[in-house]
Amino acid sequence: MQTDASSAFGINRDRLLARLDELGAVGKDPAGGRTRHALTLEDREARDLIVGWFRQAKARVCVDRIGNIYGVLGGELDERPVMIGSHIDTVTCAGALDGCYGVIAGIEVLQALSENPLLRPQRIAVAAFTNEEGVRFAPDLLGSRVLARDMDIEDALATCSRAGVTVGQELKRIGYAGEMPPWELLPRAFLELHIEQGPVLDAERVPLGIVESVQGHSWWQIEIAGTANHAGTTPMHMRRDAGMAAMTLATHAVLRAADGVGPNVGTIGTIAFEPNAINVVPGRATFTIDFRDCRDEMLVHAEQWLQEALRELRLAGFSTLARCLSRHAPVHFDQGICAMLEDLAAELGLVTRRMRSGASHDAQMLARVCPTAMIFVPSRGGISHNPQEHTDPDALFVGAHLLLHATLRLAHNAGDSR
Amino acid sequence: MQTDASSAFGINRDRLLARLDELGAVGKDPAGGRTRHALTLEDREARDLIVGWFRQAKARVCVDRIGNIYGVLGGELDERPVMIGSHIDTVTCAGALDGCYGVIAGIEVLQALSENPLLRPQRIAVAAFTNEEGVRFAPDLLGSRVLARDMDIEDALATCSRAGVTVGQELKRIGYAGEMPPWELLPRAFLELHIEQGPVLDAERVPLGIVESVQGHSWWQIEIAGTANHAGTTPMHMRRDAGMAAMTLATHAVLRAADGVGPNVGTIGTIAFEPNAINVVPGRATFTIDFRDCRDEMLVHAEQWLQEALRELRLAGFSTLARCLSRHAPVHFDQGICAMLEDLAAELGLVTRRMRSGASHDAQMLARVCPTAMIFVPSRGGISHNPQEHTDPDALFVGAHLLLHATLRLAHNAGDSR
Repeated sequence: MQTDASSAFGINRDRLLARLDELGAVGKDPAGGRTRHALTLEDREARDLIVGWFRQAKARVCVDRIGNIYGVLGGELDERPVMIGSHIDTVTCAGALDGCYGVIAGIEVLQALSENPLLRPQRIAVAAFTNEEGVRFAPDLLGSRVLARDMDIEDALATCSRAGVTVGQELKRIGYAGEMPPWELLPRAFLELHIEQGPVLDAERVPLGIVESVQGHSWWQIEIAGTANHAGTTPMHMRRDAGMAAMTLATHAVLRAADGVGPNVGTIGTIAFEPNAINVVPGRATFTIDFRDCRDEMLVHAEQWLQEALRELRLAGFSTLARCLSRHAPVHFDQGICAMLEDLAAELGLVTRRMRSGASHDAQMLARVCPTAMIFVPSRGGISHNPQEHTDPDALFVGAHLLLHATLRLAHNAGDSR
Repeated sequence: MQTDASSAFGINRDRLLARLDELGAVGKDPAGGRTRHALTLEDREARDLIVGWFRQAKARVCVDRIGNIYGVLGGELDERPVMIGSHIDTVTCAGALDGCYGVIAGIEVLQALSENPLLRPQRIAVAAFTNEEGVRFAPDLLGSRVLARDMDIEDALATCSRAGVTVGQELKRIGYAGEMPPWELLPRAFLELHIEQGPVLDAERVPLGIVESVQGHSWWQIEIAGTANHAGTTPMHMRRDAGMAAMTLATHAVLRAADGVGPNVGTIGTIAFEPNAINVVPGRATFTIDFRDCRDEMLVHAEQWLQEALRELRLAGFSTLARCLSRHAPVHFDQGICAMLEDLAAELGLVTRRMRSGASHDAQMLARVCPTAMIFVPSRGGISHNPQEHTDPDALFVGAHLLLHATLRLAHNAGDSR
């Protein structure tokens, strides 16, 4: 899988890895994590690197009104491009690969093409989308959301951080408030290369995932009120133990997922009792539920199950409160692109598996406006959003290799279908 | 059940209730709770009231080295007294009855006897024990513990508060550092009248409980470590979810108590997950277990069950840590006194039920050195350690009425057995 930097047409492995290191050094702390929240000075420094690399690849650089930056190569000016890309903003204390890998591999695709004057591909664009992580500004996926017209551009620019500054103000401050309407570069197809951020490929030792869907999610905060009582003097049959009610409901919700009768995954990530004393029966318990599935009907089914379980608790004398914290329907990627990726990988002698994405990605927004899919490479131990995030360099190269050939085929096919 | 304050021999109902109010006003906050931690200036003010009432009852006042105060009536100086009593220190924001009721009812017993010159009872002592609650100084039951030689007097005096002052210093400061060795008044029998602090008598509408045992307890802090993971990308079968492991073990522990195969009561009062985020599978979970039973073998059995459950978690790949926070064996009171109380109540036309105490009391220390029992009166709704703590005045009177006659019978029987 090793290639020489001076070899013929293809991904430059060393440059790919070196650029991942160089971008990963921006916003890095002494402990090894890096923090580049969207539209900070660290984000500007990272954007400047990307723009410089776009220019090295002889791509035209565009910035749209929401700050998405694009490197565009070839084709006619009014031609809808085949687009590849991801994001370069990070969570707090992040690894170097989440998002950045897809953007830098995209730049390698541009550069491989521009370095070979015999190739005359259809129009290709590489995107780095604004505020994918959503740490500083909510909602997440902001740049791709605006591009997909899921959110109005003016609303997006007026989005305020907790510190009270808007996206529009910060775009101006860091010099990335473009004038181009985001949909001027609306792609005819989109492909995102990303690390898995989960353990499946690593555990199965499969180097490439063809992602055919992004799980939807249904997030709930549940509060159950019973009666606080003395833990020594209150007989079991006279208790209305909010903690027991909460733990029983919570474990059932997760077990339904584990047993295959509930949604694909179910998680109880937070829980708290009141008064939270060793010798007092809890009078109140609060916890969260995170349901995810690629089948919307399974999310609806889980939500109905939850409401029924809460109704039973009310019949047993508890008070209950259920607040939906977030709800996203599942996203299904283009089966044509998935099949093309599978065929192409087989041609190139690469092993793949079909899979779903458990995390959110810009691609799920793009899927609203054009045929879209994703390619995953393994994450060691499934670890992500963490300085320990790691993918084997060979796997990083192979992913970019598939991205290059898939982009060519998409551009070729797009040219056919014009 | 009403008596006139000027009527013949018996408990003075009005004085009993008025003194409960007067003592209850010491350390009272505007919201209605009162806070009289042991050996504070509020405790001194309460002690001064008790000493004054001992004197009104013509009792000799004694203070021992650990600050227990006694009102002694009748008998020879070297005669072991029949002792009744309780405590007057409180938890934070307490009701007016916990402990205080037993002491003030005891003073009524003294006064009823001293106001009737024809009665020549055996020696009777009423005790107000130091630091029963243990809020400011640990361990709890400090005064009765020293009297029962469960703790060395010098160790007890050296006990330090979190603010860094010792019991000995504080006794001197508030003027209650006595010179009498605590065991100089070692009783030949002990009886404690107390509110139930639980819901049983109130729910069953029984005015008097004959307490034949105090539950033992076994308190544990359990920590389970698994692996924190992304809640969206980690398949259910690849998780090591510390929160699920904790909730499953915790609910089983409580259900065993509820189903009658575990200890009498089991409570999970506190729980916490790490990192405690809605979209992260918990990597660590900590919770407490409170097991209580009157049968020590049931506590041992519950502890063995817990160790086995933790061993199974370790076999499943979790790390576990179990720390015993507190362990007290059950205490069984004197069956002779319990039977006497039952007979006497029946003679007086009072309905009783045998029961256990879920909470700790000074009587459990006295049970180590002499035949001991307790009488409970109902607590409305089982509420205690709370300004809402309430017992019907008629029930308070009836309890004191039984205490008076039971004390006379104990003194008479004790005289027989000398």
